[in-house]
This record gives sequence, C-alpha cells and structure tokens, in this order.
Amino acid sequence: MKNCKWYIEQTSEDEIILHSLKEIIFSGTSPYQRIEIIRSGDFGRCLLLDGKMQSAEADEFIYHEALVHPVMLLSDNAERILIAGGGEGATLREVLKYPIKEVVMVELDEVVINTAKKYLPQWSDGAFDDPRVRLIIDDARSYIEKTKNYFDVIIIDLPEPAEGGPAYLLYTKEFYENVKEALTEKGMMVTQSASTSINNLRVFVSIVTTLRQVFPYVKPYITYVPSFFAPWGFSLASKKINPEECISKINEKIISIEKSLKFYDLDAHNSMFCLPKHIKRAIETEGRVIRDDSPLSFY
Amino acid sequence: MKNCKWYIEQTSEDEIILHSLKEIIFSGTSPYQRIEIIRSGDFGRCLLLDGKMQSAEADEFIYHEALVHPVMLLSDNAERILIAGGGEGATLREVLKYPIKEVVMVELDEVVINTAKKYLPQWSDGAFDDPRVRLIIDDARSYIEKTKNYFDVIIIDLPEPAEGGPAYLLYTKEFYENVKEALTEKGMMVTQSASTSINNLRVFVSIVTTLRQVFPYVKPYITYVPSFFAPWGFSLASKKINPEECISKINEKIISIEKSLKFYDLDAHNSMFCLPKHIKRAIETEGRVIRDDSPLSFY
Amino acid sequence: MKNCKWYIEQTSEDEIILHSLKEIIFSGTSPYQRIEIIRSGDFGRCLLLDGKMQSAEADEFIYHEALVHPVMLLSDNAERILIAGGGEGATLREVLKYPIKEVVMVELDEVVINTAKKYLPQWSDGAFDDPRVRLIIDDARSYIEKTKNYFDVIIIDLPEPAEGGPAYLLYTKEFYENVKEALTEKGMMVTQSASTSINNLRVFVSIVTTLRQVFPYVKPYITYVPSFFAPWGFSLASKKINPEECISKINEKIISIEKSLKFYDLDAHNSMFCLPKHIKRAIETEGRVIRDDSPLSFY
Amino acid sequence: MKNCKWYIEQTSEDEIILHSLKEIIFSGTSPYQRIEIIRSGDFGRCLLLDGKMQSAEADEFIYHEALVHPVMLLSDNAERILIAGGGEGATLREVLKYPIKEVVMVELDEVVINTAKKYLPQWSDGAFDDPRVRLIIDDARSYIEKTKNYFDVIIIDLPEPAEGGPAYLLYTKEFYENVKEALTEKGMMVTQSASTSINNLRVFVSIVTTLRQVFPYVKPYITYVPSFFAPWGFSLASKKINPEECISKINEKIISIEKSLKFYDLDAHNSMFCLPKHIKRAIETEGRVIRDDSPLSFY
Repeated sequence: MKNCKWYIEQTSEDEIILHSLKEIIFSGTSPYQRIEIIRSGDFGRCLLLDGKMQSAEADEFIYHEALVHPVMLLSDNAERILIAGGGEGATLREVLKYPIKEVVMVELDEVVINTAKKYLPQWSDGAFDDPRVRLIIDDARSYIEKTKNYFDVIIIDLPEPAEGGPAYLLYTKEFYENVKEALTEKGMMVTQSASTSINNLRVFVSIVTTLRQVFPYVKPYITYVPSFFAPWGFSLASKKINPEECISKINEKIISIEKSLKFYDLDAHNSMFCLPKHIKRAIETEGRVIRDDSPLSFY
Repeated sequence: MKNCKWYIEQTSEDEIILHSLKEIIFSGTSPYQRIEIIRSGDFGRCLLLDGKMQSAEADEFIYHEALVHPVMLLSDNAERILIAGGGEGATLREVLKYPIKEVVMVELDEVVINTAKKYLPQWSDGAFDDPRVRLIIDDARSYIEKTKNYFDVIIIDLPEPAEGGPAYLLYTKEFYENVKEALTEKGMMVTQSASTSINNLRVFVSIVTTLRQVFPYVKPYITYVPSFFAPWGFSLASKKINPEECISKINEKIISIEKSLKFYDLDAHNSMFCLPKHIKRAIETEGRVIRDDSPLSFY
Repeated sequence: MKNCKWYIEQTSEDEIILHSLKEIIFSGTSPYQRIEIIRSGDFGRCLLLDGKMQSAEADEFIYHEALVHPVMLLSDNAERILIAGGGEGATLREVLKYPIKEVVMVELDEVVINTAKKYLPQWSDGAFDDPRVRLIIDDARSYIEKTKNYFDVIIIDLPEPAEGGPAYLLYTKEFYENVKEALTEKGMMVTQSASTSINNLRVFVSIVTTLRQVFPYVKPYITYVPSFFAPWGFSLASKKINPEECISKINEKIISIEKSLKFYDLDAHNSMFCLPKHIKRAIETEGRVIRDDSPLSFY
Repeated sequence: MKNCKWYIEQTSEDEIILHSLKEIIFSGTSPYQRIEIIRSGDFGRCLLLDGKMQSAEADEFIYHEALVHPVMLLSDNAERILIAGGGEGATLREVLKYPIKEVVMVELDEVVINTAKKYLPQWSDGAFDDPRVRLIIDDARSYIEKTKNYFDVIIIDLPEPAEGGPAYLLYTKEFYENVKEALTEKGMMVTQSASTSINNLRVFVSIVTTLRQVFPYVKPYITYVPSFFAPWGFSLASKKINPEECISKINEKIISIEKSLKFYDLDAHNSMFCLPKHIKRAIETEGRVIRDDSPLSFY
C-alpha cells in the first residue's frame, strides 16, 4: 500500500489533476461503484466514488453548508426533509442543526454509508443515531415516485449523472416532476449541479434549464470547492414561494445556527447567489433539457 | 514540437495539474524568465512565465476585468493610472475603456510584451498604440520610488513573488509604502493577491495583512479563474476614501462601459466582495507582514 | 467507471508513469492486497496488485517465458516442480509444456487466482485443470519450510518484497535456506528479482548477493519487460549442478517446445545471460544480504 | 524556476512519464528546436530536444558506448570517421579512443554543441579540442551527398525523425544510398534506431527494413537505456564485410580500450546482438521502406 504516492483524477478530456497520496485507507467495490478512502497531502481524508472526489476532510464543510443552509433558511420552517443520496452523512449532520420533525435519507449504496461511518466518522458526527432520522436503502427515484405532497424540503446530494452510473436518472425532467409532486405546496428543493468552470459549464446550465421546465422559481448558485478544483453549482427550485422574497428571513433565522457553521454566513450567501455575467449568459443560451431518453453524455 | 501532449503545472507540493497541450506556439527565455505560449485543449492560447499560467484565451477576461474595474469604478474619476507589470497588455486594454488622461505602464521584461503582441494580439487589442499610453521598460519598484502624489489609481499586475523571481520585492510593506506615496490623496491601488484555495491561503492573507499596515482601507476580494484552477484573490487599498462608501457610484458609472464587459457587472462585483466565513477568519488570524527582509517563502 | 482515462504507477521516488486507461474491468480487495484488472491502450488487459503492474496481455509471455524456460531447460529432466506465487496461472501454463510428473503451486491469495481465471483466462489457459497440478492456498514460506529434498525445480513468482506486503519474507537468506533444503540434490531454483534499471538496481543486486550466501551456483539474468518499463532481473541458483555446464543441453531440449514459445529461443537465452559491464560491477560491489531481521526498505 | 517539480515526457499516445525535476539549468530555443538542460532526481543532468530526452548524466555511457564500439571494433582499422549529429560530443569522445586519422562531425545546430559544452562538459570531455576533429555546422544529408568513397565508418546519432523536425530526412532509403556511396568499400555504418519496446516497434523495424534495401549486411541490435525507459535499437550496415565474420576480431582489439569503458564488453556485445524471438519476427513481418516521399508518421 506504500507504493503509490499520487492519486489521479481526470476532470475533463483536457485536464488531469494529481493529488499527493499519503495513504490508501480503504479500497473496495460495492454492487454500485468503486469506493476509496485516501489521505491526500492537501485535503486530508477523501472519499472517492468511481475515482471521483466526493468529499474531503479539509473542505467538506464548504460543500455541505452550501448545499443545505440556503434551502433550509429560505423555506418556511421546514419540518419534513428528504435527502436523496448523501451517504457520507454530512448533509444529514447539517440538516439536524434545525428543529425539524423528521428527515428521511434514501441512499442506494449501504456500503458507502458504512465505509463513511467507519473511516470518516466526523462527516456524520453521530447523525445516523438521531431519532428524527429514517434511513432507507433504496433508489431515490423510485422512493420519490411513491411520495406525494409530503416533504417541505428535498435535498439531492448525488454523484454526477455518469452514463451507466447509479445517479444516471436523477437529473432528468421526469425525475424533477416527481420531486415536485413529493414536495408540499410551499416546498423547496436543492440539487448539487456540477462544475461551473468555464470549460465545463454544460452540465450545470442543463440542470438549470431542465429545472426551469418544471418549477416556477429556480435559483442557481455557486461556490468554489477547493478539493474539486472548481467552482461548484447548486440549484434551488420551489413550487410557490419565490426564494428572492425570503432573503430577509435569513437574517433572523441564521442567528440560531451560525455558531455551528464554518463557511456559510450572510456574506457567503450573497456571494453565492450573485452570478457573474458570463455564467448568466451561459444559462440563458447554452442549456438543454435533460430527459430520461436523452440524458447528458458525460465525461 | 508534436511530441508533447500534456503540459504540467505544479500548484503546490501536493497538487499537479496536467493540461492537454495542443501546440507549443513559442518557447524562449528573456533575461528575467522562461516565456512560453502554448495552446491547451480547454483554455486556448496560454501565456506561461517560468512554467506558471498567467493568462489564457478562454478566461483572461475574468482575471483582467476583476482586476481593473472595481478600482476604476470605486475611485473618483481617475485620470492618471499606473500599471505595474501587465505585460500582456490586457490590463491596459481594460483601463483604456475609461476617459482617462494618461496611463503609464512599467514592465520589466520587454520580451513578454513583444511575445504577447505577436502571439496574443487580442490581449492588448491595439492598446499599446493608444496616445494616452506611456510604456516604460523598468523595474516597477524603482519607478514608483521616484514618484510622489501623482497617480489616482495604481494597478499591480505581477507574477507571484517567487524567491529569486522578478516580482520578489513587489509585495512587501516597504513597496506598499512607496505605492502609497505615489498615489494622490484620493488615490486607490489594487493588486492581484494569489490563490485563495483552502490549501493555499497563506500568500493571500499575508498580502492583506501587509496592506493593512500601510493603508487605512483595505478590501480583499475573490473570483474564480478557471485556468488557474483556483479562486483568485485581489486586494483594493485606499488612502482616504472608504471604498464601501463608494459602491453606489458603481451603479451609475458602470452603464458607460458595461457593454464592453464579459464578466464584470454589479452581481459579479457583489459576489467578489462578499467573502465566506472561513476566508474572513483566515484573514484575521493567519496572515503575517511581508517585509523586504522577511519575504514569503514560496512554492 | 468511464471517468478515469489514465492509470498512475510510481516506479521510484523520482519517476511516475501514466498508462492510458481504457477500462477498469475489476477493482477489489482481498485480505492481502488491492487487486485491479484494467485495460490500457498499449498493453491490453493488465493485472495490478497494490497498484503495481504484475502482468499485461501484450507482454506477459516475455516475463513468464523468461522466468520458466531457463530453469526448466537447464535442470536435468525435472519431474517435480514447485511454484511459489504465480496466481495468474501463466507460470503454471509454461511449466506444463514439459513432461513433468507433478507441479505444486502455493499461492497465498485465492482471490488473485479466481480474478485471473475470470478476467484473464488466456493467462492460465486451462492450466488449473491439468491433473498434474496441485493448488495449495497457503503462505509459500511455511509450505517450503515443511518440505525436504523433494522438488527438482522451485520457481518463485511473487510481487516485490514491499514492507508489510504479502511477499515480505520471501526474499531473505533464511527463506532461501529453506528453498535449498526443499530442493533435490540436483535441484535448481529461479526467482524474479526486480528491476535492473540503473536508477533502481539495489533490490536486484541484493537478491543476487543473498542467494550467493546460500547456493554454490547463482546466475542472474535480465530481460526487458515493456509493461514494467524496465529491464527485469531473474536469478537462477542451484545446489550441485553448474548451470553454465548445461547450456549445451538447451539446444536439443528446446526443439520439443519452441513452437509454443513467442519470446524465448537460444538467442533470447544468450542475450539474457550476458550482463553488461556496469551490472556485473554493481553485483560485485553494491549488494547486501537480505535477512529476516534486516529486510530491504523498499519504495 | 523553482516552481516545477516534475518534468513530463510522453513516449506514446498511451504512455506519459513524469521525471522528478530538481532544477531547470537551461531553457532556450535555437532556429531548429527547443533545447533544455534539466536535472532529474534519478538521472542527473539531462539534455532534452523538443521535450524528448536525448542524454542523461547517469546513463549516457550506455547509449554512446553501444552506438560507437560495435561499429569501430567490427570494422577493419577504420581511419576516417564521420559522425552525423551527436551534438553533445559524447559520440566523438568514444570515437577518439581509437587510433584514427580523422573524424568529421556534421551537426546542424551549433546551439546544441555550445549548450552541451557549457552545461554538460563531461559529455565531450575535451573532444572538440582534439586535432583529429573537424566540426562542420551543416545539414548532415547535404554533406554526405557531396562525399564519395571516403569514410571507413559513418555513425548516425540524430534525434528521431519527427515530422517537421530537423532529422526528418535522415532515415530514408534515399539518405542511406548516399551514406553507402560516402563509405569506402570496406566501410560500415551504424544508426540509432529508436525504441524496441513491444508497444512501439514500428520505427525500429522500418529502419532495419529500409537499410536492407540498400546494404547487403544489416545487423540490428538492442540495449536498454534507462533514461529512455525503453530498450533502444541500433542498426549496423556494411557494404562488403559481413559483421558476423568479424566478431572474433573484437576479442583482441577490445583489450586496448576496455579499461576506458563502463558498459561495453564482450558480454554486452553478445547480449545486444542476440534478439529475442518476437523482435526477430517483427523485423521479418512488420517493417516498411521509409522513403523521402513516404516518411514515417511519428508520435
């Protein structure tokens, strides 16, 4: 295990990143994917699925706070939360900082959960033992299809829709229609939405375009995730409530949790939701609708 | 020249990036540095100095608009501008979009200017021929030392202060004191301020800390530059005018130039100046003063 | 699984090789090591143990013919053969080309055998079904310790002795003393003996030096293995028979099998056993004895 | 210059090698090529032309002794020698170990010679000052075209025939016909002949095939060059003398120079000239004739 000193990740046809590799902590395969836990020099312990960085010790707080807190603070006292994916448990950890009634987490791959619990315990930080949590090992799409008008917030925390990969059909118009029905009237969803680097914008803008076919309000936002070596996109979508009209609410509500946060505050919120000109233009002009029968061909 | 297909750039002890290399357009050395023009698959033509990416065709507009427009719009009808470095000519191009009287550009390495003019003509886009421009081939520090109370805006567009490299002494407290004296009373400066990635924050926070020793108002800001694979820091500093009190001015003044911009608008401005919590904390706690006799030891 | 396009292998502190990666066919872990089957552009299907190339479709014939045929042809009508390691089954395949009575193969890791059978069937080519074969899943050292004066030929086909890896104690003086006792009087052994590249000679010369402490006749030899990107060492050792006096025998005996060989013939034999001056000098001057309590510290 | 820690070399579409980079000692361009002198961790000072390794401190003796001594010892008291290329001066250094009358060295690129003299002085070791040496800065092909029946030995020490590179037309049938005429009746030539790795054999076998169209005797041979990460081919060709009938001569003549050699001796000679079965088969079946109007398309 001492033989390798660099870990390779290819982020596009044209870019390869080598991370120094201090240790391979775990390497295995589940029925769904390769799962590796490594320790890199810059980012500490890292979870990789099918060779792609998912979370790193040094900056998982950025990704997970950026994913969870905008939707939780903009929605109206959400009580029932659904997390699709999120096997590391860190999304769950952030959700549990709110006085919610119930959070259902639907994760396909139990091996990811158990591996993360064992080797990355700070990620979940005991969240799986909270009595408000219900963990379901299932395909998130089939679970959501069966659910109507129930969840106040749905958080989609899945790997990218690589063809043949497990999250292939969780970024399509048909899927988002199911999500819409599973939400309560005032419900809101958020999904991680891929890289927004200039050389790699296509997936992000297509997710936004697709959401706009389904939801009346769609707000994309961006923050840089160091271990992804890219500015990362997220998309908030809601059925009835215009998120822009709720921003004032954040100000009061953030007080109750801000001490427990390392990345997110009002400035971070504002920074994320102000997109530069070329990204706004790309969203208007370059996206296309992702459908079950015409998914994205992915790197 | 067809033999190499990947270009290697090491951004830290622990991270290596390989860019696909379509063509080596120019490779040479000046008395100061290695200069290469390559074409990469993702970023088009790129200028590299001593093996480090300086500007890329695909996204130089982000870096140069982020560097130039905040300081130009926040300052009060600046008429006399100094650019230290900026050999590609793109910073000059952006400055010339304003109705200024005079811009002095002090660049050490004439070979960089001539190489960029020849192989990257869109970067300067004819700016060197503008009658308001005075080009001086000299060390920016010694030029600035000789100048008192003259420039309304000073823009510092230099490579990182690698030990033994040409920009070594252009990030120190002593240098910033010279800059302060070269500015008019209402003058403002801006400097590129290195990566703000979580694994690489030290230089950025030290530049901010050092500027705060010299200037009463210092405003760091950040935007992601795709070809640097990092969120990039900039620092604005002013003698008398609080930049925060001038933000309303941007709104009116931006109208006159916004059509010529691809990245910068009010949203981009707001996004850049809102720093997330962990960056603000790092600025308060981790920086140190850079001095002529205790420069940064650099990767 | 489509995300990675390059496979990384570090062959020393100072050298990294990237192989194009067309497909990850299998990735798993046994109790002893990580096991991967990939397809590279140049070498076809490859078996990797703990990230190190063991065998590649394009050139496994070179390694396996070089390992097996010299010892089989130089020894005197060997009837009982032991293979230590050799999980892919290709060493077994080559041994079975001779009219032997019995071949015992002792491999620690059953998962390697089963993975190779499934994904690399041409490697063993049915060899495991031959009635002359006895497969034992065990540590080769403990098996050999229990065996006295039985085998005519012992072939040691194990990964390098990485500290903490499974083959750690199978390159020491104590182990070779056990091998000597397990051989018949006219018996001969051969072991793969690591890279002989100029920057990496230490392990090879130490294996030769160690064998010379135990056996009266030791003949190192070398051939280039393309997928290892290095000239590879092997060492033949015998108790009573001087291999150099047997070379004439090869001439006659090779006729019976030469049609089934792709690499090995008399020329290949001669080329392998003639070492250049600097390698001979290194063997005389640079080796040291490897012992159970002073193993090699390995890259 | 301290920023880069790895040097990249791509040896085929499917293989990339990273060498640790301790220092960039020189980087420049001549009218013909990029020239770099670096120091790598494993190989010491290295000369690179257009990004390809030409010679390394740690093992240049292997390449240069393998190139020079077989042809010098097999030919009959050669007195007039021509070296085509060989800008580092190390081929010249080896040739001058013999009691020759005259050696003409024709090198296209004076910058290579001067750079090597300055930064790699042990390569030539004073050879350029020997009174028997005549250095001509010219294209070797046009020099050889003008020469008839003059040289006893011609040594071709040029980079690979990359399309558009300076050695493009120095591996064709037409060129070898000129070489043949420039040789005396008992004359012999040798040329470096590219990699013989299994994934990269095409150039080597085509050079051998092409030489066989021109010369009655052609003897390819191979030795591993560590810094090329490949077994390297050479080809000896002669007009009248069968090299195989001269091998006995080596035995006597080698005594006079063997003390000054580090790689080459009788064993090394025998090892190099015995090709394994798959290489012999490739030579018979896979080569094609290289002509001025149908050169090799090269990686």
